[in-house]
Amino acid sequence: MALREIGVGLLGFGTVGAGVVAALQRNAELLAERLGLRLRLRKVADIDLERERGVELDRSLLTTDALSVIRCPEVDIVVELIGGTGAARTLVTEALNAGKPVVTANKALLAEHGEEIFGLAERRNVDIYFGASVGGGIPIVRALREGLVANRIESICAILNGTCNYILTRMEQDGCSFGRALAEAQKQGYAEADPRLDIDGLDTAHKAVLLASLSYGSVVPLAAVHVEGIRDFAETDLRYARDLGYRIKLLAVIKRQGEDVEVRVHPTMVPQEHVLASVGGVFNAVLVQADLSERTLYYGRGAGRDPTASTVLGDIADVAKNLRSGTRRRFHALLRSGSQVRMRSMADVATRHYLRLHLLDRPGVLAQVTAVLGAHGISIAAALQKESGGRHVPVVIVTHQAREREMAAALTELAALEVVSGKPVRVRIEDL
Amino acid sequence: MALREIGVGLLGFGTVGAGVVAALQRNAELLAERLGLRLRLRKVADIDLERERGVELDRSLLTTDALSVIRCPEVDIVVELIGGTGAARTLVTEALNAGKPVVTANKALLAEHGEEIFGLAERRNVDIYFGASVGGGIPIVRALREGLVANRIESICAILNGTCNYILTRMEQDGCSFGRALAEAQKQGYAEADPRLDIDGLDTAHKAVLLASLSYGSVVPLAAVHVEGIRDFAETDLRYARDLGYRIKLLAVIKRQGEDVEVRVHPTMVPQEHVLASVGGVFNAVLVQADLSERTLYYGRGAGRDPTASTVLGDIADVAKNLRSGTRRRFHALLRSGSQVRMRSMADVATRHYLRLHLLDRPGVLAQVTAVLGAHGISIAAALQKESGGRHVPVVIVTHQAREREMAAALTELAALEVVSGKPVRVRIEDL
Repeated sequence: MALREIGVGLLGFGTVGAGVVAALQRNAELLAERLGLRLRLRKVADIDLERERGVELDRSLLTTDALSVIRCPEVDIVVELIGGTGAARTLVTEALNAGKPVVTANKALLAEHGEEIFGLAERRNVDIYFGASVGGGIPIVRALREGLVANRIESICAILNGTCNYILTRMEQDGCSFGRALAEAQKQGYAEADPRLDIDGLDTAHKAVLLASLSYGSVVPLAAVHVEGIRDFAETDLRYARDLGYRIKLLAVIKRQGEDVEVRVHPTMVPQEHVLASVGGVFNAVLVQADLSERTLYYGRGAGRDPTASTVLGDIADVAKNLRSGTRRRFHALLRSGSQVRMRSMADVATRHYLRLHLLDRPGVLAQVTAVLGAHGISIAAALQKESGGRHVPVVIVTHQAREREMAAALTELAALEVVSGKPVRVRIEDL
Repeated sequence: MALREIGVGLLGFGTVGAGVVAALQRNAELLAERLGLRLRLRKVADIDLERERGVELDRSLLTTDALSVIRCPEVDIVVELIGGTGAARTLVTEALNAGKPVVTANKALLAEHGEEIFGLAERRNVDIYFGASVGGGIPIVRALREGLVANRIESICAILNGTCNYILTRMEQDGCSFGRALAEAQKQGYAEADPRLDIDGLDTAHKAVLLASLSYGSVVPLAAVHVEGIRDFAETDLRYARDLGYRIKLLAVIKRQGEDVEVRVHPTMVPQEHVLASVGGVFNAVLVQADLSERTLYYGRGAGRDPTASTVLGDIADVAKNLRSGTRRRFHALLRSGSQVRMRSMADVATRHYLRLHLLDRPGVLAQVTAVLGAHGISIAAALQKESGGRHVPVVIVTHQAREREMAAALTELAALEVVSGKPVRVRIEDL
């Protein structure tokens, strides 16, 4: 039987694009046999046609004209791997308007213009698949959308940025500074020359927006996400955290209570014995708490040529099957949740907190600190003085649950105390 | 718009059946909104209609006549939750012959009669979904079949039996005996009164057969799987393993090299720092190594009413979408792999090994042991004498890679040495 062919057009021939091309070549027979159809690469657009990509490709497929890829009648699926919110936005819009299904790995585009892009796909009744935009080689979007389709998602705690996780792992294991760990990450190719998107938490926030939007069926505004990165994080706090039985991870935390949803990104202490704490190096992991499946976790490489290509191809396979059977939007791009969600203000979020203060080494000083916390209704679970030496001693305080509003006020007051040297350090705790 | 209704018929109203009924009731609106169709429970068959299940159900839906469920014209999907290879086999066959898609959680049936059941489903061109037969609430079957569809699966190492993992975790954490940990598991409801299926490894083997068959596209014969359980496993070895930087897990190991596939189930030492080692208690986890996605891991509750119902409902949703769009067998029940696989004989399997021997406390004894190993080409990575005391001292030996054939011969010879007291203990090591 002659297999039906499905034409694939690629926008963006960078690292992931080359991975998709290589995988389509290498596993062509495997895919044809598994899918009962043949995926054919019809056209590949990039602004640079000369760069060496490590894959062989018939030059007649290459073009600098991205629109010609979308308009090519032999292209059934448009795969957008350009990234960013410039040309990618125009081209994805163009493809959807042309009624062509889109597979994309573009987290920034969907997190910043999700309302527009998902809305257009729905109006045009066209598929948009975005599995590779969160978690690289981990099929987490599919797991949430299909595997857990019968569940109400209660919370998601996730390590979504390999660069940050690599840096924190190095700092903890080797006791090195943030600067040295970042330099090492750059040397290994795990961090960009300009690492701001990663280390300041925006990349994680983009992915958190996508996971929250997917789980709750309406686009969560990026502006409503509280974002803190790991820039200049102190090795000391990783060490103290370990002494307390915790590890520190840059976590995306998504929680739903009733109609309220909180979405936040910040360094977080997680119990050492928890599976999430054992996720080291450039790996990502997504912990999902849902009403039926209860706790599930998904782990893998959050980036990289082949892992990302794996997920892109999984999405292409789905769209190809849909095209073959004349199905569109087999599942909604985002899960419907039956009700609108409301973003909870960060001020209302409650967690336990770790505080590190440098206090004047003098009797009665700790009492001043506890008085400030107490005045804001914050109670203390543990307080311990670390190695002393100079005029000031580091003191670590672990609090019970306290809301951000009260904690922020307390931190401001603490910083102003004469007996406190420098800015107090605060890390939120999730006991998972 | 009136939603199309899809009729569901349930065979087996036990724990998981009650979970499916409860979830269909509780999340009815959510499912309708997400799927764009309404799942309607039409009939439920069980031999016992009186037992209290903790869910309300219109008695008119209940019947003791399972065939009437399959034959009911309003039942579009047959969900088999009876388990075992008796009535379930007849009924699944009947449903497939009647052209009705089947969703099942029955690992024993598919592992022991997979050729027959999957073959029938293919001939009749009917869907058979079996997600809940492996890994409970973890959507691992879907991940392999769809998420990783573009990948060649290289290996799978998995913790697939919550009872065994609970027992091993208790033994390691509390330093208690196998017997006490088993009794505790039974008290907590984590182990059956007759725990043989779990602790002797057969349940894990059933699931391993399914994962291997799924990954390599042809049914792996259960008889070709090497199976060892954890019965009477010694707490001592968990302790010694920990000293060496390992934890011991009952692992299903599936590995492909070229056309050769090995499938085995046995207690296995895994590095303490590996994510798999951090999987404690009744949780399951599946580590997949594939050519594109590289390493991914899936973790969650391997059993239980709601987690299993979550996966059953995910499968029902898929089948319902297929029925609605007139699609059948959207993906093959088992992945095609482009070539036949050949089962590797256990004798040809190579791993590193941990050995514990009780040796007469006398000079030259260790030399006798190493001579036996050396004669079989087995080289030693480390040997250490543990706490001494009596006439015999425990000695732990860690070997480099050695094949089972040679190791089995060496173990027989070692057991026969006069200076060796009792049967040598051997645990295989996977460095993952």
